[in-house]
Amino acid sequence: MAEEVILLDFWASMFGMRTRIALEEKKVKFDYREQDLWNKGSLLLEMNPIHKKIPVLIHNGKPVCESLIQVEYIDETWPGENPFLPSDPYQRAHAKFWADFIDKKVNVTARRIWAIKGEEKEASKELIDIFKTLEAELGDKHYFGGETFGYVDIALIGFYSWFGVYNKFGNMRIETECPTLTAWAQRCLKRESVAKTLPESEKVTTFISQRLGVE
Amino acid sequence: MAEEVILLDFWASMFGMRTRIALEEKKVKFDYREQDLWNKGSLLLEMNPIHKKIPVLIHNGKPVCESLIQVEYIDETWPGENPFLPSDPYQRAHAKFWADFIDKKVNVTARRIWAIKGEEKEASKELIDIFKTLEAELGDKHYFGGETFGYVDIALIGFYSWFGVYNKFGNMRIETECPTLTAWAQRCLKRESVAKTLPESEKVTTFISQRLGVE
Repeated sequence: MAEEVILLDFWASMFGMRTRIALEEKKVKFDYREQDLWNKGSLLLEMNPIHKKIPVLIHNGKPVCESLIQVEYIDETWPGENPFLPSDPYQRAHAKFWADFIDKKVNVTARRIWAIKGEEKEASKELIDIFKTLEAELGDKHYFGGETFGYVDIALIGFYSWFGVYNKFGNMRIETECPTLTAWAQRCLKRESVAKTLPESEKVTTFISQRLGVE
Repeated sequence: MAEEVILLDFWASMFGMRTRIALEEKKVKFDYREQDLWNKGSLLLEMNPIHKKIPVLIHNGKPVCESLIQVEYIDETWPGENPFLPSDPYQRAHAKFWADFIDKKVNVTARRIWAIKGEEKEASKELIDIFKTLEAELGDKHYFGGETFGYVDIALIGFYSWFGVYNKFGNMRIETECPTLTAWAQRCLKRESVAKTLPESEKVTTFISQRLGVE
């Protein structure tokens, strides 16, 4: 039976990017359907009635919601040669810890830089601290899991396309503050899956600036 | 080699309860070490330097943090006869979705009932809606995963010992509003792992009332 894989997504979503990268890494063909987040379509509401959020992965008619769960689902459904998660339980738990850290810390803090007036300075400082913590975890490894591009890389790399937004509204330069993380992002961008998925930083910055009515 | 399993925990933590129940279900002997959360010990700070939170599971000297990650780690390390998560990727993703829903919704909303003055009424209503959503997911199944006690049950059951707190501060009676969920909790309590782990609801209510200086 032919596989039917549909992704309900929005181009600038760093969460959606995780799922797109995961599908690209596994060479799974998918029908990408851009969603209007300000006027949500019936398929999105039907497939994710609880959160009503993108990304939604629909595999043979059945929805999988929440991006990290989608990445694990993709890893388990199309195991292939390069699993995203290691097989050792301790190493798996370690990778999940850092992906969870990213989910709990990065977006919550980063959003405060551009979405909440008055919090820019404090939130920028906090975001740099978070990125420095991630740099310490990365160390001199090629990817977060070692030699192989995997789960934590997929969880984090989409945020790189938002650095322009954080730099502009936080009045900083993450690339100077966090050179190790920036070098890692550049390495990730050499992968076809990532290069194909991440939008230009300028495009995201223009989009957010226009939404906020800022030059 | 003898296994060394240590759990840094706090008796009233519904997150710690998940890990205790998971260990009991797998018949893993562990050294339970009650932590003083208001004066954190050096082992806790050393083993969870990022979040500095309980529960921390230390297996043969190596720490695993975050309760749901611990439950998965325990499931993978001591697979035994009754896995917490099903083997089918779609069913696994489904269980992870609901555990994630519990993590994102239940505690955040429930805390507002007793910890934030003025939000009791609104938060109580929201909590009942969340529990009703969980009741709809449970349906007429014995446990969330069907016939077998598993991941979602473990993620949720600890909150039952806090119902007294929510009822008192939210001025409601969850057991009347959500009879299906209450019946499920009663079923879970028949398991030795759960009965042994959950504190008396009155004990939690007294503890929180005393901390808040409320009769």
